[in-house]
Amino acid sequence: MSQQLVVGIDIGGTNTKFGIVDRRGNILCDGRMLTNQHEEVADFLDELHGHLSKLIEQVGGIDNIRGIGVGAPNGNFYTGNVEYAPNLRWKGIVPLANLLGEKFGLPTVLTNDANAAALGELIYGAAKGMKDFIVITLGTGVGSGIVANGQLIYGHDGFAGELGHCIVIPGGRLHPGTGAHGSLEAYASATGVTNTALEFLAERPDVKSTLRDHPKEEINSKLVFEAAMAGDPLAREVYEFTGKILGEALANFVMFSSPEAIILFGGLTKAGDLIMKPVREHMEMNLLPIFQNKVKLVFSELKESDAAILGASALAWEQQNAKYQVPNTKMGE
Amino acid sequence: MSQQLVVGIDIGGTNTKFGIVDRRGNILCDGRMLTNQHEEVADFLDELHGHLSKLIEQVGGIDNIRGIGVGAPNGNFYTGNVEYAPNLRWKGIVPLANLLGEKFGLPTVLTNDANAAALGELIYGAAKGMKDFIVITLGTGVGSGIVANGQLIYGHDGFAGELGHCIVIPGGRLHPGTGAHGSLEAYASATGVTNTALEFLAERPDVKSTLRDHPKEEINSKLVFEAAMAGDPLAREVYEFTGKILGEALANFVMFSSPEAIILFGGLTKAGDLIMKPVREHMEMNLLPIFQNKVKLVFSELKESDAAILGASALAWEQQNAKYQVPNTKMGE
Repeated sequence: MSQQLVVGIDIGGTNTKFGIVDRRGNILCDGRMLTNQHEEVADFLDELHGHLSKLIEQVGGIDNIRGIGVGAPNGNFYTGNVEYAPNLRWKGIVPLANLLGEKFGLPTVLTNDANAAALGELIYGAAKGMKDFIVITLGTGVGSGIVANGQLIYGHDGFAGELGHCIVIPGGRLHPGTGAHGSLEAYASATGVTNTALEFLAERPDVKSTLRDHPKEEINSKLVFEAAMAGDPLAREVYEFTGKILGEALANFVMFSSPEAIILFGGLTKAGDLIMKPVREHMEMNLLPIFQNKVKLVFSELKESDAAILGASALAWEQQNAKYQVPNTKMGE
Repeated sequence: MSQQLVVGIDIGGTNTKFGIVDRRGNILCDGRMLTNQHEEVADFLDELHGHLSKLIEQVGGIDNIRGIGVGAPNGNFYTGNVEYAPNLRWKGIVPLANLLGEKFGLPTVLTNDANAAALGELIYGAAKGMKDFIVITLGTGVGSGIVANGQLIYGHDGFAGELGHCIVIPGGRLHPGTGAHGSLEAYASATGVTNTALEFLAERPDVKSTLRDHPKEEINSKLVFEAAMAGDPLAREVYEFTGKILGEALANFVMFSSPEAIILFGGLTKAGDLIMKPVREHMEMNLLPIFQNKVKLVFSELKESDAAILGASALAWEQQNAKYQVPNTKMGE
């Protein structure tokens, strides 16, 4: 019975979610706290330790816990550090895996949130049993986790899988965060959808749209989504366009690693067929014949509310297989 | 002493090269024959067997040979088949690894030529000791072999690493072989260089060029290379443009697998700094800051005349590590 549970911690720009998970992906108990309440990482860790200690007691104590997995923005698997995360209050390089591991006396593995999502799919989700797949997270930004030969691709420095920053339209739309022109994230993210809608509203004054009932500064991806679901033609064109760009990008990714499946996750997938149809069509159109009609293009099966914790927890099962162990902590302290 | 040698066979559209190689990458003896002399693959194999048997005798007989590695266009590592290779006379699916293995009574591993090139770099070349790198072959076409976590990425079906077919300019230049518009191969191959030169000659009548001394149908990548080396401004612009497109593409590849190095190989690299400078500049310009000034961008150190045999032979050392063994042959027959 002992060590049959793991802790998953997902550190987001706003919330930090945590939970205790069993082998089958059941979240036995969970909680959340604000990420940016504390200026010092030590104070953040104190609060997190308080919450998690209670949960750990609820499941029978620390002897039942095998380890901790953490998904964090700019998290580096090799070092266990969070490095220069633009959305977090702690600046520079924070050795979060070591700090957490020491605090709990548990082996701790950390990676970025999209890699954690990929492991979540591998262990509990749509990619169970697959050796080659890609997860694309379509939220505020566009993230990715790539599994090949049954292993996450971390690259030589731990930063592989930044597919959202691939240039898909050379000289295209500016990404204000990176200064790049035409990156996938500038189009296939929530912000990208909003910007496409604003462009279409300005460029196509003849196309009727309920979005015109709102002042420009109120337009956001949620409004576009609702309008599209209600049949608004301009909002639907926004999804067509977004799907085309994403589909073309996916074709390039297939040419790289020839995955068995591409799993789409996150806010944009709520639009269902409105986004899936153009993505699939334009992916297939841009593939070499040897790749056509082979890649399973699916939405994640994990509940969005659970996925972040599950993904992070998946890391904790994987740690024995990791070639580069995060330097471990004083066990049983 | 026994089994310290391997056979490398590189099957190209014109020539098939073969040789016997030791652990350190010395080619002890080698030979070549025409690939497309025989309509039937059985006759091709008979001729190859005749040539190779003599070489094997020269190095002390079959007991010294550990196995055979084959690089072939459209070669599939998982099946050992050559599948629908457009430049070969044998049509459809040819189980070449099995046929060869049976003929020689030796374990035989087969993959495509660019993957073989990557293994050649890993075992004998610029990527020795690296776990994450990409080889780009810039010849008649653009091929690629990708190593991540110390393993070649084959993908779920054996066809990963077709980076030459990634779309880099959506809606761009037609690739007559694939029907795609704007793929990397349409620009960064020998044919691409020729076509760019023809475009520039037509579009820039005011730019002087020695290439204008030749009739249009005589322009080829060799002439463009010679003109560029002699300082011809238009020919140099062709390399600038080619390097820009290749550099932008490499930036996207880095965002995928964050390699320690990218190794360029093949005809285009003869231009040295004329191509390397713009490639490096535009790769760096298009990388996220976390990737900048980290990727070693180098030319292959392998002699071009040796590289094909070395790459193919490298497969034969690797076979024990392959997760999917090519079905083996009657050993010692």
